[in-house]
Amino acid sequence: MEKKVNKPVVNIFALGGLGEVGKNMYVIEYGKDIFIVDSGIIFPDEHLLGVDYVIPDYSYLIENEKRIQGLFITHAHEDHIGGIPYLLKKVKIPAIYACGVTVEMIENKLEEYPDLLSMVKIVEFKSHFIYKFNKVEVSFIRLNHSIPDSFGVCFKTPLGTIFHTGDFKFDFTPVGQKAEYEKLAKLGVDGCLALLADSTNALREGFTESEKKIGESIKELFSKINNRIICATFASNMFRVQQIIEACVENNRHVAIFGRSMEKTIEVGQEVGYIKAPKNTIIEAADIDKYKPEELCLLCTGSQGEPLAALSRIANGSHKLIKLMPSDTIIFSSSPIPGNQEGINRTINLLFKQGADVITHSPIADTHTTGHASQGELKLMLSLVKPKYFIPIHGEYRMQRVHADLAIETGVKPENCFILENGDVLTINEDGAKPNGHVQSGEVYIDGSGIGDISSIVIKERKILSEDGMFAVILTIDSKNKTIPLEPQVVSRGFIYMKDNEELTRSFLTEVKKYVEAEFKKMKLLNLLTIKTGLTEFLGRLIYEKTDRKPMIIPIFMDINPGTKA
Amino acid sequence: MEKKVNKPVVNIFALGGLGEVGKNMYVIEYGKDIFIVDSGIIFPDEHLLGVDYVIPDYSYLIENEKRIQGLFITHAHEDHIGGIPYLLKKVKIPAIYACGVTVEMIENKLEEYPDLLSMVKIVEFKSHFIYKFNKVEVSFIRLNHSIPDSFGVCFKTPLGTIFHTGDFKFDFTPVGQKAEYEKLAKLGVDGCLALLADSTNALREGFTESEKKIGESIKELFSKINNRIICATFASNMFRVQQIIEACVENNRHVAIFGRSMEKTIEVGQEVGYIKAPKNTIIEAADIDKYKPEELCLLCTGSQGEPLAALSRIANGSHKLIKLMPSDTIIFSSSPIPGNQEGINRTINLLFKQGADVITHSPIADTHTTGHASQGELKLMLSLVKPKYFIPIHGEYRMQRVHADLAIETGVKPENCFILENGDVLTINEDGAKPNGHVQSGEVYIDGSGIGDISSIVIKERKILSEDGMFAVILTIDSKNKTIPLEPQVVSRGFIYMKDNEELTRSFLTEVKKYVEAEFKKMKLLNLLTIKTGLTEFLGRLIYEKTDRKPMIIPIFMDINPGTKA
Repeated sequence: MEKKVNKPVVNIFALGGLGEVGKNMYVIEYGKDIFIVDSGIIFPDEHLLGVDYVIPDYSYLIENEKRIQGLFITHAHEDHIGGIPYLLKKVKIPAIYACGVTVEMIENKLEEYPDLLSMVKIVEFKSHFIYKFNKVEVSFIRLNHSIPDSFGVCFKTPLGTIFHTGDFKFDFTPVGQKAEYEKLAKLGVDGCLALLADSTNALREGFTESEKKIGESIKELFSKINNRIICATFASNMFRVQQIIEACVENNRHVAIFGRSMEKTIEVGQEVGYIKAPKNTIIEAADIDKYKPEELCLLCTGSQGEPLAALSRIANGSHKLIKLMPSDTIIFSSSPIPGNQEGINRTINLLFKQGADVITHSPIADTHTTGHASQGELKLMLSLVKPKYFIPIHGEYRMQRVHADLAIETGVKPENCFILENGDVLTINEDGAKPNGHVQSGEVYIDGSGIGDISSIVIKERKILSEDGMFAVILTIDSKNKTIPLEPQVVSRGFIYMKDNEELTRSFLTEVKKYVEAEFKKMKLLNLLTIKTGLTEFLGRLIYEKTDRKPMIIPIFMDINPGTKA
Repeated sequence: MEKKVNKPVVNIFALGGLGEVGKNMYVIEYGKDIFIVDSGIIFPDEHLLGVDYVIPDYSYLIENEKRIQGLFITHAHEDHIGGIPYLLKKVKIPAIYACGVTVEMIENKLEEYPDLLSMVKIVEFKSHFIYKFNKVEVSFIRLNHSIPDSFGVCFKTPLGTIFHTGDFKFDFTPVGQKAEYEKLAKLGVDGCLALLADSTNALREGFTESEKKIGESIKELFSKINNRIICATFASNMFRVQQIIEACVENNRHVAIFGRSMEKTIEVGQEVGYIKAPKNTIIEAADIDKYKPEELCLLCTGSQGEPLAALSRIANGSHKLIKLMPSDTIIFSSSPIPGNQEGINRTINLLFKQGADVITHSPIADTHTTGHASQGELKLMLSLVKPKYFIPIHGEYRMQRVHADLAIETGVKPENCFILENGDVLTINEDGAKPNGHVQSGEVYIDGSGIGDISSIVIKERKILSEDGMFAVILTIDSKNKTIPLEPQVVSRGFIYMKDNEELTRSFLTEVKKYVEAEFKKMKLLNLLTIKTGLTEFLGRLIYEKTDRKPMIIPIFMDINPGTKA
């Protein structure tokens, strides 16, 4: 008779990536073993003042560090690898598993952190590799996306296989390798216990256009332009970069590269072999003046209107090497990421104003396609894999919900679809699957690299400061004798322009002095904290009455003769 | 023989509205007489921290106040009337000319400023009125737009007629009155010297859909919904509001109104007669619990995701009267204004998350149409009016440029199209038209109602404060004896959370003290300003080294014993 064992249990949850597009980090647990998929960042929305990145709360991983078997990276976008340095600082990871370009990009990233780079083990997997960790086998399925070497990850457990797609689309005529449909089909035949799939484009009908078609339309566009071309695209999209290079070769143009991330793409892409160009096609940025305008294509960053990127500098005239010419044609081989439209419009208007022509992605000029599966491909994935349980990931709530509806359409039982939030645990055992509480999850703000994370208190202070500035009043007091030996002073910033409002300021100071003197008289034992609190409220009200503004009030007492304290 | 007179001259320029969508204010001068068209505001972009509105610089009008004949208002949108109170505070205007709803909206706005309201003369014009000012006749042409009583304004001068369209579209089956095509055609026959026309939708091909069609599709949508409907739209669009009310009547629903601006629309609309509802259709907001869900439509503000609007409060659960039900259907009868997409997405996700259904404008659910002419209508306007000179207004640069291209297509000579910026003056006389220098123009920031405008210095300070906060160091000094009798203190906000970083703070203070003491030693005559400047730089560098952040450094010296000053 077999010895009795603990019943097998799988836990699935996300520390980031659900209800949002960004900071992807998913956890698959089988028994005691923890497998992590991706470690991303998200860029802060406009409310997180001064925050550079947001990463997931790693508490769960810190507490359960010893159980972690590995971190599996699906592809090299920032929302999947950007958090790695922060994670490694806090959590010991036995190894990071990544493929091809992804390995290069992670190593590049970690070069800024030499201590981390020397510490971490990066294992390069190939598409056909299988890793065994106790009872779990990890394998990979190549898919299509807007960056090379994008994979879904399979976790084969005694309960069944959990498949995580990463970001994906199906491109039947891809620029790089094809998706491994046969592996997906086999998974469907063998049985997929649970599918976690990318929901980014769940609201988009039909099928995503092939990258190859974009290449053709870029070539056609190029053939009609008789002057200099400036082309902006996502630096990480090596397929696109390669196609732009090919369009240049076909049209006898040399390519000069502008923008640090674009330079890195070219460098890594050439190393790995995804970017190929005949000799002399790619020229030094400093050499562009040696060529005629019609022999040039300037390939640059800035397709999202980022203020410091190459294209934005070209548009506002602050680029060191490039002076815009009215005969230039600027091609955006991109589409706006939500939130960036206004910045992009600013750039486009600046370009137009200087007489240049600007071509953006449109039905007429088909210069871009998305990296994510539309509804047709999502249904194809579901139809191939035929999962028992379905968890839409990587998307805002409504994308997750529409994706769940698609799953139901393709035959997944409604009760087997789980729309989770970050931290929600789905537990699967022999009896079935059900939500099972939460692990700690949340946002950690990264600002600068020195201190690390910042608190929400600091963000709140910045919010107040950003709206109405600050108003500090400095009182030098003699608390023993209960006097104010020096005249109070004011320092304000971001409030009102003080030089224009000296009288108002003086009136505030007079009131402040009166208030504090009255308090001094009232109190037998001085309680400075009470006075400060009262003064803050009093002065805040006074300022609001006179100015309709609510600056942050900061009372500062310098006690030159501390007396008896309350 | 006729006595020699000064040659007639027309000047045309804008103080706001060119290169932007907002703060419209155009000036037509004939000889000494100044005619103003519109007085709008624009909402600040995300860089103008804490700014509520932006208005044009009125300097030119202040300086030339006596020459102003009148302010002509084309329609009642905020980007055309929002600046009136600020203008009236600075400039004496003999009269404001407006029609119907626009008069009501201006009066409503001025009710908050009783002194202005008693001072200003509002003249209500009708479509067929003609006003004569010396040699200029002012008349009006009714057009279509997304608010009733929208007009173009004609200025008939001895040199010819200048026609300003205001915001317009052509709706061949409008909900309100038809556009006065015959007047446009007559203007074309009689001769139009210059056309200033709305460029907002110059990038949009074809014709703008009729408002009536939207009404039909809303009715159809309503007929399929069996539970409570919450409908959000632009409060100022009385045509839409009326059609939503009609859809309710047809589907046996009562309408409850939520949001202050929506309440005002209903009030004004009923007064003027544009909003009509059978008795008991519109019910009190507090009475909604007396009706079954399927008998209700809640009409509310918040279609742009504005955080404090009714729909946003409903979505986040903070609305006093309305609790969202999973059976609710929310209809957005609107489209996103650029920059608002993220806020709208947040609202939609919140609604979905609570199980409600959300319908936004799409090819399937045709719940919205724009108020501005697409390319087809722009060409129709140009074809009817046949202007000699053309000035595209009301739009970003690329919209103006595309609009100019349309004008050229319809027969305007390329050299007769003028793409102006705010402040650029176009002068027309018997010899022709040409750019003729600039008048002062710019942006004035309005924050709160107390002080009025704020300076760009204040905005810059807020920007720094918002990104990295502030770090103030307070030194009580005895400058006569060159000592620091008290320990320096730190006050920081929005920088790092001080309680977590006490050691770091102490190290900064030690360095500060050392620095100042060294300066004291070096200087024979103390120059506190020099010390402060040096300290700011020194401390800024130190903090950046340790934290990678650049807070605003504020050194404060309290001198308890002022000595000899340098």
